[in-house]
Amino acid sequence: MTWRFALVIEPVASDDSRTDFSATFREIDPSAPALSVGELSTQRGDGIFESIGVVDRHPQETQAHLDRLVHSAGLCDLPSPHLEQWRQAVDVAAAHCPPEGEGVIKLILSRGVEHGPTPTAWVTAAQAADNTAVRKRGVRVVTLDRGYGIDTPARAPWLLLGAKTLSYAVNMAAIREAKRRDADDAIFVSSDGFVLEAPTASLILRLGDRYVTPAPNGGILHGTTQLSLFEHLAAQGLQTGYEVIPVASLARADAAWLVSSVRLAAPIRAIDGVDVAVDEELTASFNRYLLSPRD
Amino acid sequence: MTWRFALVIEPVASDDSRTDFSATFREIDPSAPALSVGELSTQRGDGIFESIGVVDRHPQETQAHLDRLVHSAGLCDLPSPHLEQWRQAVDVAAAHCPPEGEGVIKLILSRGVEHGPTPTAWVTAAQAADNTAVRKRGVRVVTLDRGYGIDTPARAPWLLLGAKTLSYAVNMAAIREAKRRDADDAIFVSSDGFVLEAPTASLILRLGDRYVTPAPNGGILHGTTQLSLFEHLAAQGLQTGYEVIPVASLARADAAWLVSSVRLAAPIRAIDGVDVAVDEELTASFNRYLLSPRD
Repeated sequence: MTWRFALVIEPVASDDSRTDFSATFREIDPSAPALSVGELSTQRGDGIFESIGVVDRHPQETQAHLDRLVHSAGLCDLPSPHLEQWRQAVDVAAAHCPPEGEGVIKLILSRGVEHGPTPTAWVTAAQAADNTAVRKRGVRVVTLDRGYGIDTPARAPWLLLGAKTLSYAVNMAAIREAKRRDADDAIFVSSDGFVLEAPTASLILRLGDRYVTPAPNGGILHGTTQLSLFEHLAAQGLQTGYEVIPVASLARADAAWLVSSVRLAAPIRAIDGVDVAVDEELTASFNRYLLSPRD
Repeated sequence: MTWRFALVIEPVASDDSRTDFSATFREIDPSAPALSVGELSTQRGDGIFESIGVVDRHPQETQAHLDRLVHSAGLCDLPSPHLEQWRQAVDVAAAHCPPEGEGVIKLILSRGVEHGPTPTAWVTAAQAADNTAVRKRGVRVVTLDRGYGIDTPARAPWLLLGAKTLSYAVNMAAIREAKRRDADDAIFVSSDGFVLEAPTASLILRLGDRYVTPAPNGGILHGTTQLSLFEHLAAQGLQTGYEVIPVASLARADAAWLVSSVRLAAPIRAIDGVDVAVDEELTASFNRYLLSPRD
């Protein structure tokens, strides 16, 4: 049995001084019509979002997600979200989750209705898919050209490459392409041969005793789950790093994972048809950590 | 006074044999809530669209727009639209436009509600902005790097570069960037120095006695208005062509236009701050043609 919840938010200015934002929230039926056809989120993919994992009613890494929402808003010239308002909305959504089990809270900030005066915003909560099997079994991935050079984002900020926008059609198409190639997911690579990210996840490689992830240089999102896992690894005295990673390094990886807020750590078991060793014990320890309450 | 109209469509299989699709249409209040927050158009920009110009209740070049909708659906692995169903929906929308004046009919085909069984679809009609002044006065444009090489689309179809998807956040960001640079609009160029298209329009250059537009090689949309105008020019014995156009050719253009379904032909009066001659008489003749009924 699945559960769902939705809350429409009336966004306030980022310097609004009130402390209780409940008057700006309106619970709605998540399956009922709620948005007009004039919504720019739907007409233009013109807005930003975040997906927060929920474990036993605890929203994971809320601050990191809110920070990234603010970052995305800046890149997209959207009014800066009021952190406390959004945090309270997340708390309301989390409180409507069942006391046990995994869920996902989505935050959406749209540019609003076309020619309308203000952005529109809403938060949803829903039961997460059961990812137990994929966390153990892992994923087969293929590399797909993202079309950009590694230096493109720095010189063309209008491409919004570091923003988590609602314009995800390409990300979804990449996953379909992966499935056509008998894989489960994709790793985007730059047109000049560097590793980037997955369509909805970050990539972590273990190279010897180091854990590395592609540097978030504006061309990829800074993954909240990757960030959290790196803190966990560093706390154990392990070496982590952000690097410019050539595609050839994928073949040298001793282990590799796609990490994201809801699926958590999925070990990579093949890249472009070549098997990669899966460290089951280490992966299980990652997921135990990722399923523990994190702030 | 503005007017608006909206119709929700229940998409049928492309081989449905009925001849009257009115039972699959449901008129809705265009400003009322109509879409659920689970809509993938709004969550992922995952869908396709067309914007058809309307003049005195006549939808312009409906067939060309429907053909492109089918093309976009194929690139996005969406079920192929039933041409006759959509044509009838366009006719219903056009019949709800005022007998005189300009409007825009939008067709939207979304992948549907997340985890839902079918795509969702709707058609809207609205009064067009008054473009009289811009058709005469013209636009100042800046060139912006689209980030891709000219050959990227052919080798990476998952980038959906030839599909008119709802993921238009970058197109909207490019227009904001143009405005920051004291211009009105942008021309996207490839990272290796070739001219592509504007974020919501096609580009036509006059080079001597030839009219040229960038070849739709999968990286840009084939503009319906450009196509129509080329037919008009060819019918007058004028030379038209699709070419791979280096950015340097922009400086050699004797005249240039951005053409699109609703704004029609807007003469370009400056590119990156350098004035371009505007041929007022020729531009007026283009717009007279584009405002005449076209099928």
